[in-house]
Amino acid sequence: MDISIIEIKKIVESALSEDIGSGDITTAFVVPDNLMANGIIVAEEDIVLSGIGVAEEVFRALDSDVAFEALANDGDSVKTGSNIARLHGNARTLLTGERVALNFLQRLSGIATLSRKFKVAVNGFPVRIVDTRKTTPGLRTLEKYAVRAGGCWNHRFGLFDGILIKENHIALTGGIAVAISSVKARVPHTIKIEIEVSNLEEVREAVQAGADIILLDNMDIQMMKEAVSIIRGHKDKNLLIEASGGMTLDRVKEVASTGVDIISAGALIHSAVWANISMDINKIKE
Amino acid sequence: MDISIIEIKKIVESALSEDIGSGDITTAFVVPDNLMANGIIVAEEDIVLSGIGVAEEVFRALDSDVAFEALANDGDSVKTGSNIARLHGNARTLLTGERVALNFLQRLSGIATLSRKFKVAVNGFPVRIVDTRKTTPGLRTLEKYAVRAGGCWNHRFGLFDGILIKENHIALTGGIAVAISSVKARVPHTIKIEIEVSNLEEVREAVQAGADIILLDNMDIQMMKEAVSIIRGHKDKNLLIEASGGMTLDRVKEVASTGVDIISAGALIHSAVWANISMDINKIKE
Amino acid sequence: MDISIIEIKKIVESALSEDIGSGDITTAFVVPDNLMANGIIVAEEDIVLSGIGVAEEVFRALDSDVAFEALANDGDSVKTGSNIARLHGNARTLLTGERVALNFLQRLSGIATLSRKFKVAVNGFPVRIVDTRKTTPGLRTLEKYAVRAGGCWNHRFGLFDGILIKENHIALTGGIAVAISSVKARVPHTIKIEIEVSNLEEVREAVQAGADIILLDNMDIQMMKEAVSIIRGHKDKNLLIEASGGMTLDRVKEVASTGVDIISAGALIHSAVWANISMDINKIKE
Amino acid sequence: MDISIIEIKKIVESALSEDIGSGDITTAFVVPDNLMANGIIVAEEDIVLSGIGVAEEVFRALDSDVAFEALANDGDSVKTGSNIARLHGNARTLLTGERVALNFLQRLSGIATLSRKFKVAVNGFPVRIVDTRKTTPGLRTLEKYAVRAGGCWNHRFGLFDGILIKENHIALTGGIAVAISSVKARVPHTIKIEIEVSNLEEVREAVQAGADIILLDNMDIQMMKEAVSIIRGHKDKNLLIEASGGMTLDRVKEVASTGVDIISAGALIHSAVWANISMDINKIKE
Amino acid sequence: MDISIIEIKKIVESALSEDIGSGDITTAFVVPDNLMANGIIVAEEDIVLSGIGVAEEVFRALDSDVAFEALANDGDSVKTGSNIARLHGNARTLLTGERVALNFLQRLSGIATLSRKFKVAVNGFPVRIVDTRKTTPGLRTLEKYAVRAGGCWNHRFGLFDGILIKENHIALTGGIAVAISSVKARVPHTIKIEIEVSNLEEVREAVQAGADIILLDNMDIQMMKEAVSIIRGHKDKNLLIEASGGMTLDRVKEVASTGVDIISAGALIHSAVWANISMDINKIKE
Amino acid sequence: MDISIIEIKKIVESALSEDIGSGDITTAFVVPDNLMANGIIVAEEDIVLSGIGVAEEVFRALDSDVAFEALANDGDSVKTGSNIARLHGNARTLLTGERVALNFLQRLSGIATLSRKFKVAVNGFPVRIVDTRKTTPGLRTLEKYAVRAGGCWNHRFGLFDGILIKENHIALTGGIAVAISSVKARVPHTIKIEIEVSNLEEVREAVQAGADIILLDNMDIQMMKEAVSIIRGHKDKNLLIEASGGMTLDRVKEVASTGVDIISAGALIHSAVWANISMDINKIKE
Repeated sequence: MDISIIEIKKIVESALSEDIGSGDITTAFVVPDNLMANGIIVAEEDIVLSGIGVAEEVFRALDSDVAFEALANDGDSVKTGSNIARLHGNARTLLTGERVALNFLQRLSGIATLSRKFKVAVNGFPVRIVDTRKTTPGLRTLEKYAVRAGGCWNHRFGLFDGILIKENHIALTGGIAVAISSVKARVPHTIKIEIEVSNLEEVREAVQAGADIILLDNMDIQMMKEAVSIIRGHKDKNLLIEASGGMTLDRVKEVASTGVDIISAGALIHSAVWANISMDINKIKE
Repeated sequence: MDISIIEIKKIVESALSEDIGSGDITTAFVVPDNLMANGIIVAEEDIVLSGIGVAEEVFRALDSDVAFEALANDGDSVKTGSNIARLHGNARTLLTGERVALNFLQRLSGIATLSRKFKVAVNGFPVRIVDTRKTTPGLRTLEKYAVRAGGCWNHRFGLFDGILIKENHIALTGGIAVAISSVKARVPHTIKIEIEVSNLEEVREAVQAGADIILLDNMDIQMMKEAVSIIRGHKDKNLLIEASGGMTLDRVKEVASTGVDIISAGALIHSAVWANISMDINKIKE
Repeated sequence: MDISIIEIKKIVESALSEDIGSGDITTAFVVPDNLMANGIIVAEEDIVLSGIGVAEEVFRALDSDVAFEALANDGDSVKTGSNIARLHGNARTLLTGERVALNFLQRLSGIATLSRKFKVAVNGFPVRIVDTRKTTPGLRTLEKYAVRAGGCWNHRFGLFDGILIKENHIALTGGIAVAISSVKARVPHTIKIEIEVSNLEEVREAVQAGADIILLDNMDIQMMKEAVSIIRGHKDKNLLIEASGGMTLDRVKEVASTGVDIISAGALIHSAVWANISMDINKIKE
Repeated sequence: MDISIIEIKKIVESALSEDIGSGDITTAFVVPDNLMANGIIVAEEDIVLSGIGVAEEVFRALDSDVAFEALANDGDSVKTGSNIARLHGNARTLLTGERVALNFLQRLSGIATLSRKFKVAVNGFPVRIVDTRKTTPGLRTLEKYAVRAGGCWNHRFGLFDGILIKENHIALTGGIAVAISSVKARVPHTIKIEIEVSNLEEVREAVQAGADIILLDNMDIQMMKEAVSIIRGHKDKNLLIEASGGMTLDRVKEVASTGVDIISAGALIHSAVWANISMDINKIKE
Repeated sequence: MDISIIEIKKIVESALSEDIGSGDITTAFVVPDNLMANGIIVAEEDIVLSGIGVAEEVFRALDSDVAFEALANDGDSVKTGSNIARLHGNARTLLTGERVALNFLQRLSGIATLSRKFKVAVNGFPVRIVDTRKTTPGLRTLEKYAVRAGGCWNHRFGLFDGILIKENHIALTGGIAVAISSVKARVPHTIKIEIEVSNLEEVREAVQAGADIILLDNMDIQMMKEAVSIIRGHKDKNLLIEASGGMTLDRVKEVASTGVDIISAGALIHSAVWANISMDINKIKE
Repeated sequence: MDISIIEIKKIVESALSEDIGSGDITTAFVVPDNLMANGIIVAEEDIVLSGIGVAEEVFRALDSDVAFEALANDGDSVKTGSNIARLHGNARTLLTGERVALNFLQRLSGIATLSRKFKVAVNGFPVRIVDTRKTTPGLRTLEKYAVRAGGCWNHRFGLFDGILIKENHIALTGGIAVAISSVKARVPHTIKIEIEVSNLEEVREAVQAGADIILLDNMDIQMMKEAVSIIRGHKDKNLLIEASGGMTLDRVKEVASTGVDIISAGALIHSAVWANISMDINKIKE
């Protein structure tokens, strides 16, 4: 994974604490302490996998002796019935970690699977589908990782690492030109300036004011096309054009056809349902 | 809310840290420090509301001087276009808190809205729809709260506060009778013993062994009916009957008609998509 | 141990931070860095052991290379002078970890030893002695574990995983029947409903209202007997009867003789004094 | 209180999380949200009070609107039946905070009450009774505070803020003189050097080597007297003499009579049982 | 301040815990509990102020009743002997918070003061002096804030919010072109791509490969000039030019004269010594 | 190191989180996952080394498989160009950990190097140079460790482990005698009592009142000499004399010549600039 192991360990430990609390009483009362078992994680439907390393870390956090063999990689298309991972270790550990491991895998693979559909929908167009800040509180790092596993891209992570001047910001200050010049005076030189616009006049104003990225928010297809045409007229500025607002799977191809560079879709994350993945745990035959 | 304020504050603070990091640079660079503003949170579709108190806590954590007036309560059906809350306070605070507040509201109201649909689907039947442990890691307390706001009920919270002997447990030990008697010997007397069964023989065994709750897992309707009939034959045991396994909105009414007491549906949470809710922030007219 | 390794690690690390702070200056200034030593943990009086796994974790958290061999298990009766564990490792680690390891062992074994006495006191009666929520703040998981090591049982863990309607609750609402029906409407189906009563009228009311467990609080022996007789008259309801209030070692046998199913005694934990356990550390003979 | 409010808040919040978890379900299901109540905390036996400020902080952490009026101060002798504090506030808050507040008060007052007995036992002698590092993991700050409330004194807090060269340290290095001179070369000048000795030869060696405090460990009364006599012979060195080892309430007066300056007794904390304190919560009469 | 209040509170609380631990024993033993006092914070040399809001938060965290009046703002030049802030409140609180408040103020004002000197040194040149990731572990948010207070700018915050392909990265892969194209394929569109080069050939390669920012590392003045000339030859690419490597106060003017856009100087932070600031606390005259 | 491994791990993990956040995107996008590399840490100027064990822990926290071989010890004088440590491991890990490891090494070695200069400046005098509480918030444990590595000593760690009655304390109470006797009545017997004085009258008063350490604050050399003479006149009291106030490298020798025992100098830490240390990372030749 290309995400920090320090962060993964924190998220995994916190998820385990949430589920296990003081202890897994069913397992403790039913299963002998020293019993060994095999486990197998299986795709119950066609999915794009994401979170296999997180699942491994779940069992590792409980017991460093568990053997975990991934049989597919994040980003792989996995067919119904295919095995995703094989485990071997203390039976109690496998039982106690099962649900948390699956919760990560199912949530993340759900996002990756939907992201892949978005990506496929715009195949052939020079466009990126990116996520937004509409993510489940506490899980943004992983959810954005799953978007990448699905083949899409990330927008900024949060309020601290990107500039996006939105309608509300503009309304509260003296307009587009003032907002952009205020930002230019202070923003680190490593970050591009993006501004949200909703009509063609604002598009022109944003181009003049020196934005790096123009976000066409909630425009209809026709207006998007005109906006693209206006912006492309300023070739020397190398501007990026992003479109947002209700970007569903049905719509993205048409939007891509307008010539925008980026389509941002909260739906990648907020409309993803869980992928169906299960785990079987078996006593080792003697 | 009927959940601990200590927990809510922790979850909210952690969500704010995730999104804001070292600071909201767009707002800091664009909006004057002392500007006041009004905000309004609006339902963009018909929803069942959940999380209004969490949203309030988001703004309160940033600035105790923000005025937040809820215009609807958790559990209320809110129509498209209705106002959910009115805010007044420092413009920067409203802008910085907006997304996190909405992320909670949209995720939780999404769950509440779907839960309400499940509840309505079994109207008239003496049955409870309950959730499962299939929840987003880190957000279980709030997601289970949203299920209640939708009018459904909760199953156990985690591995520590309930006994559910699953197929995997039984497979790893000496069978249903042994498992139940092991648990009986050790479980706190305040907790009921639930066991998962998948055929009628197991049903009979579980009843004999003294389970309190029989979970009919992945049975077809016919088998469920027979299982109910067998279990109801032991009136003096006051057993509860729960059904689980692929409980979609389409199926629950038919399952309810089998006479089970409880239907557990992971879908309440894992198949909920976000409710569409937005926030407008306006300068105060002078 | 049947408690979560995640929780144990947190408690142990926090205890080590409390005692060691920035560093064990005596040891650092006196003992060479690379000296190896043997340690032996010894019972200085007859005890029931509890916490051996926690003690091991204390040394492991400081230095994963320490060898720790337990010579007795939690729950074992250990005689004066018997060895409990043998250690081998860096001399500084043994010296630095000694007090924290003993603090856990002495506190937990103190509880296990007293719990065993309670258990023995009611030998032959079909009754459980259980603990209460009267535990040392921050140490409940381990203290309740020690109660089990002593051979007694646990009541609910906290306010979140059990229903106990107490006198104060009833006084603040409309009485027993209302309180129980309010709870029934909302409590997860996995949790039994317990209610505290202090006279026979309340006993009858609680039975009628459908409680699962009747807690006879601060009744004298005669009243307890009558209460038991009333409740056992409702055989079909399978009610559990618990007695509480000043349950000292002297009294529990007489209380057990009334026929109650459970005796809850805060004394298991709040009146336990530390078991006398010591540790010797010796240079390795060359 | 003379302890850091930052630490108290952390301990209190952690204790509340432990007990309440996701929520106090009994109270939430039974007691209306907006009900107000009065509470009264009462001594059920003669105690020395400790922890009243912690109890206040418990309720304050749940709800800043609770009124908490202390009717006695830490260190006060409180008679059976006396009121310790009066509360007024939301009924749910009083019910939810009750047990945690009492757990602190009962544990700390138990220690203060026992400490007071030790202090009284040596009345008239120019001696201090001090505690040790035998404290409940996680609660040392508060337990040492309770010792002071009882009228005794504290030894060092942990391994970081005092030098105590114990038998084990000496055994692992080249003897008393070497150990003391190693420490002298490195210890901050603000900290005295204490060394544990168990016979008169070691006493003389420790005096020669330049210790500031001589700890007479597990000596009988006669040997203590001789040790005191030897040490007092070096008037110019201003040495402090401490005695330790099985210091029970029965023995301390005789030990004090030997002329030692300090008696360290783990029993102040590890042999204290909880003080009996209760809380009543009543609906407000209209 | 334009940084997150959530982060400031965490840093302040952690600093107070570090200094106060279980309690400020000198103050607790010497100063009466209810004494009120005035405090005044004074510049003992000419400084540029930074951290006044953090200092206020220090006292606020200890006691919300302290009155803190700032007499200067972050970024102000403050002359020797000038008052920076006036305080009024409980004497113990002022004494206990003094050192931590000053530690923040002195460290941050030291950085702001040095940053101002760098800024002044390049007055008249169209260049930004920016900081680096050479910051004190744990204090980056505040140290970068102090740089801004001094009138300079920030580079990226950490490894997560900016792309800087350094010599080590290039050495480990297939060269500049490959590295840049790998990044382009995956980096969020909101982030510019910066690459470090050390000779003119690399400059040309970086320009060709499509970098957004060229970092001239450890070049002499002559080579910098040639590099600038090469890069400015590609006007349509709008490239930014940054210079780094041993950027001391003595050198920056000459570097600025080469025409680079940005000079990054670790010295702003790692070579700043503390500003001299003190606090007086006085009894209130009756 | 003589500091707690528990604390080091916490500080290191927190520093890594600060720098890496969700992930090191440059490295992830540029460097293959399975590439191995060698690293070498080099002194770029003459330094006294401190923090080598912390640097090792940085890489260990990211990846337990990294081999880290220290080539010098803390406290060693290391010449320009000398190698400090050799590393071997995953190339991504070396790149990601580099800056944090160097930040610790450079800050701590900067302090050790300056401390060494102070120590050398008073060579031949029976005096200790000690640090103060003027330390970077959050880093006190390590900064005080670096002072020791440089050959100087530590004063108290914080407000909890030493008594220092300062001018402000005295001003707020009834004077020196009262302050000292209040402290004597309550302070643990393991801690010496230090008091700050600023003229000869106060010196006499402090001696009379029974202080253990007299801190001569901001006196000129002549007054210091007289103060020393007065205090040494009371030989039987074994008093320590400390001098403080603007103790720069230029002045300490003259101050040492007055005969004081201790010179406390905030400058050891607050005026230390970073040592110049770098790290090279190379592909392994095949």
